[in-house]
Amino acid sequence: MSTISLLSDEELSPEARAVFDDIRATRQTDHVNNFWRALAHDPAQLAAIWGRLKTVMGPGALDPLTKEMIYIAVSAANSCAYCAHSHTASARAKGMSDEMYAELLTVIGMASQTNALANAMQVPVDDAFKAG
Amino acid sequence: MSTISLLSDEELSPEARAVFDDIRATRQTDHVNNFWRALAHDPAQLAAIWGRLKTVMGPGALDPLTKEMIYIAVSAANSCAYCAHSHTASARAKGMSDEMYAELLTVIGMASQTNALANAMQVPVDDAFKAG
Amino acid sequence: MSTISLLSDEELSPEARAVFDDIRATRQTDHVNNFWRALAHDPAQLAAIWGRLKTVMGPGALDPLTKEMIYIAVSAANSCAYCAHSHTASARAKGMSDEMYAELLTVIGMASQTNALANAMQVPVDDAFKAG
Amino acid sequence: MSTISLLSDEELSPEARAVFDDIRATRQTDHVNNFWRALAHDPAQLAAIWGRLKTVMGPGALDPLTKEMIYIAVSAANSCAYCAHSHTASARAKGMSDEMYAELLTVIGMASQTNALANAMQVPVDDAFKAG
Amino acid sequence: MSTISLLSDEELSPEARAVFDDIRATRQTDHVNNFWRALAHDPAQLAAIWGRLKTVMGPGALDPLTKEMIYIAVSAANSCAYCAHSHTASARAKGMSDEMYAELLTVIGMASQTNALANAMQVPVDDAFKAG
Amino acid sequence: MSTISLLSDEELSPEARAVFDDIRATRQTDHVNNFWRALAHDPAQLAAIWGRLKTVMGPGALDPLTKEMIYIAVSAANSCAYCAHSHTASARAKGMSDEMYAELLTVIGMASQTNALANAMQVPVDDAFKAG
Repeated sequence: MSTISLLSDEELSPEARAVFDDIRATRQTDHVNNFWRALAHDPAQLAAIWGRLKTVMGPGALDPLTKEMIYIAVSAANSCAYCAHSHTASARAKGMSDEMYAELLTVIGMASQTNALANAMQVPVDDAFKAG
Repeated sequence: MSTISLLSDEELSPEARAVFDDIRATRQTDHVNNFWRALAHDPAQLAAIWGRLKTVMGPGALDPLTKEMIYIAVSAANSCAYCAHSHTASARAKGMSDEMYAELLTVIGMASQTNALANAMQVPVDDAFKAG
Repeated sequence: MSTISLLSDEELSPEARAVFDDIRATRQTDHVNNFWRALAHDPAQLAAIWGRLKTVMGPGALDPLTKEMIYIAVSAANSCAYCAHSHTASARAKGMSDEMYAELLTVIGMASQTNALANAMQVPVDDAFKAG
Repeated sequence: MSTISLLSDEELSPEARAVFDDIRATRQTDHVNNFWRALAHDPAQLAAIWGRLKTVMGPGALDPLTKEMIYIAVSAANSCAYCAHSHTASARAKGMSDEMYAELLTVIGMASQTNALANAMQVPVDDAFKAG
Repeated sequence: MSTISLLSDEELSPEARAVFDDIRATRQTDHVNNFWRALAHDPAQLAAIWGRLKTVMGPGALDPLTKEMIYIAVSAANSCAYCAHSHTASARAKGMSDEMYAELLTVIGMASQTNALANAMQVPVDDAFKAG
Repeated sequence: MSTISLLSDEELSPEARAVFDDIRATRQTDHVNNFWRALAHDPAQLAAIWGRLKTVMGPGALDPLTKEMIYIAVSAANSCAYCAHSHTASARAKGMSDEMYAELLTVIGMASQTNALANAMQVPVDDAFKAG
């Protein structure tokens, strides 16, 4: 179904295998999902994205669950079927309740609606909003 | 600059005036930003969007600041200049620190990158992610 | 402001000049807007797009005003500032009333909202909707 | 396949049930499509969107069929598979002929092409197009 | 699965048949892919798009393989599943190696990430970049 | 104009200063463009993106100019004004001729048009195109 084959564990290069080992250790699961199996054809890209993702999505000024919900929002706007599925699953695993998901969806819908209206009418930015 | 004129307070219909009054009372500021002044040509739409926005963006299972950050994320993905400006200002007014904004940006960037990759490769959704 | 210069009438190649003449004759105005002045660097592309546009946007099973409103809707979704401005002006010139524009905006907003929700939730298509 | 289960009639809350009753009465069909079954987890959102949709898509300065075609155009630009299917079915049910659909598609294609070109070249908006 | 039926060779109008003949002759294959079978309901649109595509994607200042990779990049950004599949297959048929595809993907990912960041922060264009 | 201030050289942290030094050395120019001055508020993100960009956009199986043109294509599809400007300037600096830019634009336009049509009609992927 993809434009590139999904590599099985047996087909991995040593560099890709090392990344898969880290994915498994970090997530504490044996399951390595299809996105990484597609990316594994390019071990340097696989390592770069996984490495950055691990840092970006970890705890910080924002908690990991908030970050997953932001990820879902971007994925919906970009119409990424894979990402909507994978990050909704991640968010639930990190504690997103049904109520939280419902509210996330209302914000995504509201923002998409007003984005389109502001873009259609090309509303000029208020001086009060300019920071830079 | 917009495709429709921005109504001044003097040009408002009574229905639009009532919505502006509520915007001012709710936000405790005299400033009514340009988006509402463009929408005010259609008082029914103005009332519907403001009314729903007030509910959606209020406190609930998610706090109002988290909702503003989700709004920014959607607005970036939809390339809405107006919304990026207005909701970043709102998020800051609700307490978004520089550290939180920096992390928000890293998540937006990361999600956009992997969205594009998953869409380019058309990675099939893992069975483990399917809920419905 | 653009990434390519806008050609003045004096800078046009003969092929581009012929297209500009047809634009002026068809629209019955001396004003040739900036989009065509940017495209005029490539006379073959200019001729191809103008020729197809003239056919596509003319009367048929759908009237020209309906087509302009559809054009605005696509332009809002694609966040095209130039196109939102130019086609809203065209639609108004073809008779779009304030009431029609207001309703167009409500549909654009509604569709954008439900698009994002359906994409976020990845709602499967009902069998009843499948034609092909 | 979705990120949230599709509720059967038996699983609806009383508030969601009331909305489903109104959908069935308004559309004069027993079929309630999957979008509403996914939204039904959040009866307030379900009621808000259905209520607004009923108003927005009804007759007014624009006829319901024109509105459905505008909806299709936005859905194509946002790459919403579900919405493309559901609103094409709705448009056909409201009288969209093969000729009308063919012309709708030509406008969607044309707009998408020129949107991308104007965005690539960042063509500045002509003064003549500025209204606000 | 599509919103319009895919026409078999037997269902083609004479005008559409002539385009299919040219597709087969140009590509030297009997396979005419589904996109053209969907478009064939509107022979004028079919002829216009095929005719332009043949010119645009042929050799010129850019070679056909580079053009296919640009096509893939746009298709990923627009979340077009069909186009990602069809143009990745075309690019491979024209000689895209695994290494080239891997680098194409890294550029698509990088651009998508920085696009989102620049759109989120609304970075003003440097004077040095302005040509028009 | 941006949602975050653009840092002058004097305002940089030592970590950000080191990245700016590398940008200047790599590009052999004193000019550091606004994108990096906005990102510099988060030195870790600045270093991560610049470091990855330097690798991704360098020579490899694809030459740097081809990569810049792919970047422009993605930026047009994502409606990123800043990126369209900055990467068109970069492509020209790397040798993109007027003829190459004209052909790049035709491919961007063509792809955007057929993306929208395939998304509108939801054309199913031919079995022949499936690799994964």
